[in-house]
Amino acid sequence: MVVELISVGTELLLGNIVNTNAQFLAEKCASLGLSMYHQVTVGDNRERLAEDINTALQRADIIILTGGLGPTEDDITKEVCAEVMGFKLVEDPHTRERIETYFKNSIYPVITENNWKQALIPEGCKVLDNHNGTAPGLILEKAGKAAILLPGPFNELKPLFLDAVSPYLQELQPEVIRSQMIKICGHGESQVADQIKDLIAAQTNPTIAPYAKTAEVHLRVTARAADDETAKSLIKPVVKEIKNRFGDDIYTTKEEETLEMAVVRLLKKYELTVTTAESCTGGLIAGRLVNVSGASEVFREGFVTYSNKAKRKILDVSKGTLKKYGAVSEQTAKEMATGGVFATDADVCIAVTGIAGPSTEGDKPVGLVYIACYMKDKVKVEEYHFKGNRDKIREQAVVKSLDLLRRSILANYRG
Amino acid sequence: MVVELISVGTELLLGNIVNTNAQFLAEKCASLGLSMYHQVTVGDNRERLAEDINTALQRADIIILTGGLGPTEDDITKEVCAEVMGFKLVEDPHTRERIETYFKNSIYPVITENNWKQALIPEGCKVLDNHNGTAPGLILEKAGKAAILLPGPFNELKPLFLDAVSPYLQELQPEVIRSQMIKICGHGESQVADQIKDLIAAQTNPTIAPYAKTAEVHLRVTARAADDETAKSLIKPVVKEIKNRFGDDIYTTKEEETLEMAVVRLLKKYELTVTTAESCTGGLIAGRLVNVSGASEVFREGFVTYSNKAKRKILDVSKGTLKKYGAVSEQTAKEMATGGVFATDADVCIAVTGIAGPSTEGDKPVGLVYIACYMKDKVKVEEYHFKGNRDKIREQAVVKSLDLLRRSILANYRG
Repeated sequence: MVVELISVGTELLLGNIVNTNAQFLAEKCASLGLSMYHQVTVGDNRERLAEDINTALQRADIIILTGGLGPTEDDITKEVCAEVMGFKLVEDPHTRERIETYFKNSIYPVITENNWKQALIPEGCKVLDNHNGTAPGLILEKAGKAAILLPGPFNELKPLFLDAVSPYLQELQPEVIRSQMIKICGHGESQVADQIKDLIAAQTNPTIAPYAKTAEVHLRVTARAADDETAKSLIKPVVKEIKNRFGDDIYTTKEEETLEMAVVRLLKKYELTVTTAESCTGGLIAGRLVNVSGASEVFREGFVTYSNKAKRKILDVSKGTLKKYGAVSEQTAKEMATGGVFATDADVCIAVTGIAGPSTEGDKPVGLVYIACYMKDKVKVEEYHFKGNRDKIREQAVVKSLDLLRRSILANYRG
Repeated sequence: MVVELISVGTELLLGNIVNTNAQFLAEKCASLGLSMYHQVTVGDNRERLAEDINTALQRADIIILTGGLGPTEDDITKEVCAEVMGFKLVEDPHTRERIETYFKNSIYPVITENNWKQALIPEGCKVLDNHNGTAPGLILEKAGKAAILLPGPFNELKPLFLDAVSPYLQELQPEVIRSQMIKICGHGESQVADQIKDLIAAQTNPTIAPYAKTAEVHLRVTARAADDETAKSLIKPVVKEIKNRFGDDIYTTKEEETLEMAVVRLLKKYELTVTTAESCTGGLIAGRLVNVSGASEVFREGFVTYSNKAKRKILDVSKGTLKKYGAVSEQTAKEMATGGVFATDADVCIAVTGIAGPSTEGDKPVGLVYIACYMKDKVKVEEYHFKGNRDKIREQAVVKSLDLLRRSILANYRG
């Protein structure tokens, strides 16, 4: 079953808002096993909207239209879709009553003439009650095709989709689709692709899709089958093979787990607390850790020591080290990590010092970053040469720091 | 001039990521005076991509394709676009050299065979050097039409668009389009719209477009004219009127200036140094400040005091205050801000304590955040009740903190 998405609204074409509806609907459709080949965004223009609906009805079984169901002049989705599919608009007494009730309890109790426009529906269509607004969802069925119309505001669209559209689509779908995520840190996208090119070349069902993230690569293994059991058994050997090839480079196989969540999970598992000593990353590592709900169990305090003076005062980095090797050096990173542990009662400290640019420091290049991890009376330091602008360098340094912390825990504590 | 956007990537059709590129490009194209009637998203599929390119070339003068320029098997945008438009692919020695240099200093120094694929370009096309990745931007021109190919990652796409594509598009435009940005902090989108609804109702040239950001609203005033002088004179009175209405709520009228840049600019102007004492924001305020190149002049150190113990030890928050009022209270925020200044030699401290959720603390609700600013022996505290998930609450707290810092400087130091 093929589904196509049409987002209606000039505000999308002007870039006034991000189309988060499309992401939500695409993900939900994928999880229902529907194939989506095209998403289209079009403005509040009759001719162009009609053209896009026609095209979509030719190449898809189901089309989902969002937006343009409001009461104003430029809300035209329902009218145009009904016309293209050959439906007459008639007043729906049930919807009219719902509009009346809605306004009665609202802070704007006056019902203007154009509000009644929302009680008009394509004759014979399915009406999906909207509990968060006045525009109902609508399903128009004709000649083996279906058009599903949903209001644009996300807080109206989301419950309508989950409560009414999702069950409708599930019934139409004979196949089950299941996917498994594998998240890898420590390789670039092309390195990952290279290591599994034989698997990718051989793929039919399941498929393997790589997603490049900053200093991470995510692989999604997806299978289709008649039932859940079969889908899972198709995925299993492929995931096992990928795990064999990447080992500890894989930080999680859970869809929703981020790198910082994996790190906090390991810290909790081994009952460790961590502190941070950040220079060029300026608090972003701490920010990522605190992003994890429940991080307070493992993270109590952290330091941003941007100046040399702060490195000396807070982390006890020696004047001699700063003078001899400079703030961006292996030696300073080591002393920062050690100082972080001694300044707190944490078991572990992750420290970062580097040059995010745009200007260099002496003969040291932009992108040079040292990351140190103090654990069990030992400090491990890594030297990196990151590419990109200030943001990108800092982002990569944050990911590599969290990953060094993760690998250090595995190396020191795993049985 | 009509432009059409084609976003290429199965990850968009599967809903793995939100298409923020489309929003960015749509906004930029609108500000250049280009008309956009359609945006299309298509997967990594040759036949369907070719179909969409053909359709777009029929109905637009310029098409912008994003994504699918990577080194892997499923990156097909360049190949398909070249084929549809009748270009042969040839190796570009300049790009090959750039790839070599890129990998030489990268964290993944191994160049695999598929990386060289990125050195192939449609013969005779314009090559736009990518300083943040290995895929160059490309402009293919034929029969009065142009296809602009940009890499998918935003940190590569954005500088390529601003540095190379924007000037290219500007030259194609017969009319001069000028726009002026006004960035407002302290009002919601509907409040801003309400305060200028008369201006919006009366708009023809210039136009006023509002863009909602997290805890900010940006207004873009855009004029079209035969020459630069006329365009500017059309914009001027409208900007003046908006400035009159919003006053200090406007933190900048510079296109590229972020809130943290405006804050650092003010700190520099009045020769002030700042420190940070963060609980629920966990280092993100420091991270935003350090994001500004040259922040070291005004920011030397900061603290993440997530636990009560850290608040006591580092910031000298009294045990009594924590016991009587709790960690999330006006009193604790005040003592954190005061303690931050006394623990450092900074002139100013911004402190934040709050409940980002998902769990509440005692009878205090998720979203309750106190922000304090110590300046000139006084502490100002603000209480907020933010809506949304953990991320969203923290993001709003960071913006409001930076804004409180900005307003405090204006109140205390402006003549």
